[in-house]
Amino acid sequence: MGSRMPGLRHLVSIDDLSLDEIKKLFVHARAFGEDLRASAELCRGMIAASLFFEPSTRTRLSFESAMLRLGGGVITAADMRNLSASKGESLADTVRVVSGAYADIIVLRHSSEGAARLASQYASVPVINAGDGAHEHPTQTLCDLYNLWLERGRIEGLDVVLAGDLRYSRTIHSFAYALARFGANVVCVPAPGFEMPDYVLQRLREEFGVEPQRADAKSLGDLASQSDAVYLTPQKPHQLSLFTDARGFAVARVDALYMTRPQTERHPSGAQLENYVQLGKRQLAAESLRDAVVMHPLPRRDELSEEIDSDPRSIYFKQAARGVPIRMAILASLLGRLAVLEREPVVTARLYPVQTGPNPCANPTCISRTEARHVVPQYKVSSRLPLRVHCGFCSHEVALHLVGCSTTRHWHEPDSSELRKVRPDHLVFLADAAEAERLGFVAATRERSPA
Amino acid sequence: MGSRMPGLRHLVSIDDLSLDEIKKLFVHARAFGEDLRASAELCRGMIAASLFFEPSTRTRLSFESAMLRLGGGVITAADMRNLSASKGESLADTVRVVSGAYADIIVLRHSSEGAARLASQYASVPVINAGDGAHEHPTQTLCDLYNLWLERGRIEGLDVVLAGDLRYSRTIHSFAYALARFGANVVCVPAPGFEMPDYVLQRLREEFGVEPQRADAKSLGDLASQSDAVYLTPQKPHQLSLFTDARGFAVARVDALYMTRPQTERHPSGAQLENYVQLGKRQLAAESLRDAVVMHPLPRRDELSEEIDSDPRSIYFKQAARGVPIRMAILASLLGRLAVLEREPVVTARLYPVQTGPNPCANPTCISRTEARHVVPQYKVSSRLPLRVHCGFCSHEVALHLVGCSTTRHWHEPDSSELRKVRPDHLVFLADAAEAERLGFVAATRERSPA
Amino acid sequence: MGSRMPGLRHLVSIDDLSLDEIKKLFVHARAFGEDLRASAELCRGMIAASLFFEPSTRTRLSFESAMLRLGGGVITAADMRNLSASKGESLADTVRVVSGAYADIIVLRHSSEGAARLASQYASVPVINAGDGAHEHPTQTLCDLYNLWLERGRIEGLDVVLAGDLRYSRTIHSFAYALARFGANVVCVPAPGFEMPDYVLQRLREEFGVEPQRADAKSLGDLASQSDAVYLTPQKPHQLSLFTDARGFAVARVDALYMTRPQTERHPSGAQLENYVQLGKRQLAAESLRDAVVMHPLPRRDELSEEIDSDPRSIYFKQAARGVPIRMAILASLLGRLAVLEREPVVTARLYPVQTGPNPCANPTCISRTEARHVVPQYKVSSRLPLRVHCGFCSHEVALHLVGCSTTRHWHEPDSSELRKVRPDHLVFLADAAEAERLGFVAATRERSPA
Repeated sequence: MGSRMPGLRHLVSIDDLSLDEIKKLFVHARAFGEDLRASAELCRGMIAASLFFEPSTRTRLSFESAMLRLGGGVITAADMRNLSASKGESLADTVRVVSGAYADIIVLRHSSEGAARLASQYASVPVINAGDGAHEHPTQTLCDLYNLWLERGRIEGLDVVLAGDLRYSRTIHSFAYALARFGANVVCVPAPGFEMPDYVLQRLREEFGVEPQRADAKSLGDLASQSDAVYLTPQKPHQLSLFTDARGFAVARVDALYMTRPQTERHPSGAQLENYVQLGKRQLAAESLRDAVVMHPLPRRDELSEEIDSDPRSIYFKQAARGVPIRMAILASLLGRLAVLEREPVVTARLYPVQTGPNPCANPTCISRTEARHVVPQYKVSSRLPLRVHCGFCSHEVALHLVGCSTTRHWHEPDSSELRKVRPDHLVFLADAAEAERLGFVAATRERSPA
Repeated sequence: MGSRMPGLRHLVSIDDLSLDEIKKLFVHARAFGEDLRASAELCRGMIAASLFFEPSTRTRLSFESAMLRLGGGVITAADMRNLSASKGESLADTVRVVSGAYADIIVLRHSSEGAARLASQYASVPVINAGDGAHEHPTQTLCDLYNLWLERGRIEGLDVVLAGDLRYSRTIHSFAYALARFGANVVCVPAPGFEMPDYVLQRLREEFGVEPQRADAKSLGDLASQSDAVYLTPQKPHQLSLFTDARGFAVARVDALYMTRPQTERHPSGAQLENYVQLGKRQLAAESLRDAVVMHPLPRRDELSEEIDSDPRSIYFKQAARGVPIRMAILASLLGRLAVLEREPVVTARLYPVQTGPNPCANPTCISRTEARHVVPQYKVSSRLPLRVHCGFCSHEVALHLVGCSTTRHWHEPDSSELRKVRPDHLVFLADAAEAERLGFVAATRERSPA
Repeated sequence: MGSRMPGLRHLVSIDDLSLDEIKKLFVHARAFGEDLRASAELCRGMIAASLFFEPSTRTRLSFESAMLRLGGGVITAADMRNLSASKGESLADTVRVVSGAYADIIVLRHSSEGAARLASQYASVPVINAGDGAHEHPTQTLCDLYNLWLERGRIEGLDVVLAGDLRYSRTIHSFAYALARFGANVVCVPAPGFEMPDYVLQRLREEFGVEPQRADAKSLGDLASQSDAVYLTPQKPHQLSLFTDARGFAVARVDALYMTRPQTERHPSGAQLENYVQLGKRQLAAESLRDAVVMHPLPRRDELSEEIDSDPRSIYFKQAARGVPIRMAILASLLGRLAVLEREPVVTARLYPVQTGPNPCANPTCISRTEARHVVPQYKVSSRLPLRVHCGFCSHEVALHLVGCSTTRHWHEPDSSELRKVRPDHLVFLADAAEAERLGFVAATRERSPA
């Protein structure tokens, strides 16, 4: 693992930013957006490196435009995939070289989850995650939030409908977490077969105290006619406009409707696209949507009809355009040209290297697996009792079988209360007793039968 | 169709520019060319997006160099083809997003004819056509004209020989129209089997009053020995140097010889390349070419011998280099930094959307077909009697079978004089009586047998 | 061949630079490196064209960063291979067009040896060789030398160990020549089967008077345990620290250890990678390496263990980062913005075009063969007696069979002393008597039997 440089900030996850920092970004983004050409000296002489290990032209152009509009320069590798495969260089090495003198900031897109986290640990300049597999894409989420904030003046307490593919869309999961964090209410209206996954609901519950409840979405009309809506609200006093009865929380007035396309590239074959919702004039006619802004991360397919493009509520092209000023604010802040970021990030979970035993992360597209030769796995402890552990790179939960202590060389069942006594950095993750024995661990029998 | 923004100019076709505007562009280009580094503040803070849906490195680098020399920035997608195919985004959506905040001007290259016209209808910034399939490449044509103007001081009345592939070369057709528009005389000396197509001659005749005549090209020597030369001259007083007798117009003194390579990628298999002309020292020795400049759009193959590279008449490398200053003038004008363009373009044919019936354009590579899901076909009416209609995107002529009126729901034979009474925006193009019936049209019998 | 423009300098080979020019480059590079953002006006308004006929992202980004840090602009073709193949344009034409107005300097990467030399003969702006096949990569070599100079304060008299693949690595050959030229001592410690080739040793001997001698490398410990070390020293007074006995020159104190990866892409199949040396903590523990800096051109694979990344002697990431300031110095010098280069380069061997007979160069990846249709072969005469001739593009030695004189039309055996009388530009290279006869040459019998 590379050394942490004090005062060097990255944007790997939206959780790296405090709510206060995010709001400051919005204020600067709004100023940039008012005259995109007015800040052409702010980052003069600085260089951003666009390192795209998988192509994503739209995201890349948005970042590069933002950097140019700040007066900076850009060096671009639009598709490093083949290169890195053929020469076999580790991501850590690439990042160390590029951050040595080539660039003052790195914008990284990668197909492996956790790639940006890894890069941030080796870079001597700020790293921005421009999408790491199915994991995070924080500038997209910030752009979505920024749009809400700009259109509605606030985020807290807004009622936001998420519609379409709530199962496979990375965008929508990150957006849901962020809305919960900001105290907005979310109504899930999935296409049939595309419901929000349990692990997302679980995180919403555990981290933000959001309890899913049945929603009465009949006021959404056609949009909700085929699906069971779910209402997600932070544990705060509810909005006056909402009340609950036997049918669940009523969806009376929606502030924003966020539509997504089916993420067919991640679907199991046979997903029922024929029932996928299409948002058109008829759907938008619902009374509850009268004042809602319609958002979509684009590109769209059939789920968003071109017939509503000229509807004043449709802001999805503006939404995309606002990706430039929000990225300007992010770049300029990380480059130290705006007073937005604290010296140290909000402390989120601490990461520990796996010093004994195999990689506990089972996600095959995690950077700890795709670059297994070069990467020391890392984990974070989300809860001590019961013990819950996530991969430090891709954030997937680690399935616990047997858990050892690297100093006592004892192993425990994962639900053993003795695990409280093991220091987090001494945890060892073992598949079974045979593996434990092979690595020199013995069962913690003494602890099981108290003296 | 997107909304027209007043005062927003595009360069989709050279016909979008008046002769006066073109001449002003030339004057500015000449100034830029005298010191390429002298205007590095003119477009400071502005960004051009190079959107190349098919690669064309030379054209792209020329535009990007021009923008940088104006002090602007560039964001580049050198090959968007795969991207757009995989994500299935419409060109209209791409253009709306990119013109939202990413860029202040779009340079578009596309493999479908009419793509740039479509893009211009959705963009909120100027669009420059950098080649749309086999349709137009107006900055190449402007560059060719600019070279003539710079070398000869004028274009009107010049005698220009077009040689080589006059059949499949987009460059040469556009150049021929432009020369006719400027009042130059053209001598066609095609390679055998590569004669100028009838539809080009027809447009030259109808639009510019140019009547093809037999030319006596024996003074061109070897160059013309294998082909029948054709002389094209605007209906204006002829040059003194020209006279006609039984052998046709004599080609006495040529101002410019424009050579082209065979467009083998567009050939039917079996085109007779073995008879293709090669321009070398022997051909250039003809007396009539003594003062001619030799032009070629490059890249070349065997048709332009390297043995004449050092001949002072060979200007083809200068010609390519001058692509930068002329593109500087075009970019700066469209960006509003030079006083060249009128607020509104010369009105050419008005475009009408096809509101009833199928797409009348039969060109399979027209953008109205390659993006049929997203594009409402458009047409323009070139003549009322006889009725002649062209596709609004790719300019291909529409083959008329039955023609209906969307208000009366009558259909007519395409040569019916009753069609004069149908408003242009009410025309409906029908394949046959069965289709007419299916769409609810009836034969205009009353009109056929007058009451 | 294009015309030579007086005062136009290129960097095709490191031999194009005098030692004095190189040292001046180092001084400027050091100044640039001290504050990478301090020179952002030096090349304002100038444009570099990155023409990469094969992808090499690292080299490209390094150059582009350097140009941007100088305030210049960059136009990029990251992979021109397919383009040029499909349109069949010659490299000479591409270079003439791009240097016409597109760019003020060309950075060229090509898979054919000699491509940059060819380009420099046609360009009207400076050409920098960013790697031409297995031939040269002078900015990499300059970067390596610069690192030595910066770390050690000098190059002359340093003891440098070259380890790993000394057979197939272009980098290492160029570095060895340069070290010899600067008067450094080299200790070759190849991996078994990867010994320095004879032609490199021969050039070291002939050009720089370096005589290979057996080296006693036992003080290098593990690093040298499997190989016979060779000591290369210029014919100058040896360092005090070195002495020779029956075991050869002792390697007492090493200034720099330069490690290379196996160039597997150029290996014959079956090269013994299992015996390839790995540099780790154990190898670095050798007493003689106590003060050595560890260098590597990157990317690395297993030959350079990540366990020494944090060793203070490991400078390979700094080494890569210093590629930016040294390239800034190179770009700014060639662009005439630094007083580094003399008006004319150090005269190296003169090149002669092959005016009669076939191309004498047998290297199939030489640009004279890969672009045989467009390139007139060139040769240089390295020695008159015995006659030795090298290709003017790729520098491969020409195997001499029969040698003719283009004026007398006589042919000679290659070891004939009569060849001294033939002017270098009159030499004709013939495969055998049959070819000689076909081309009208007769045996120089008179000269063999003196009158």
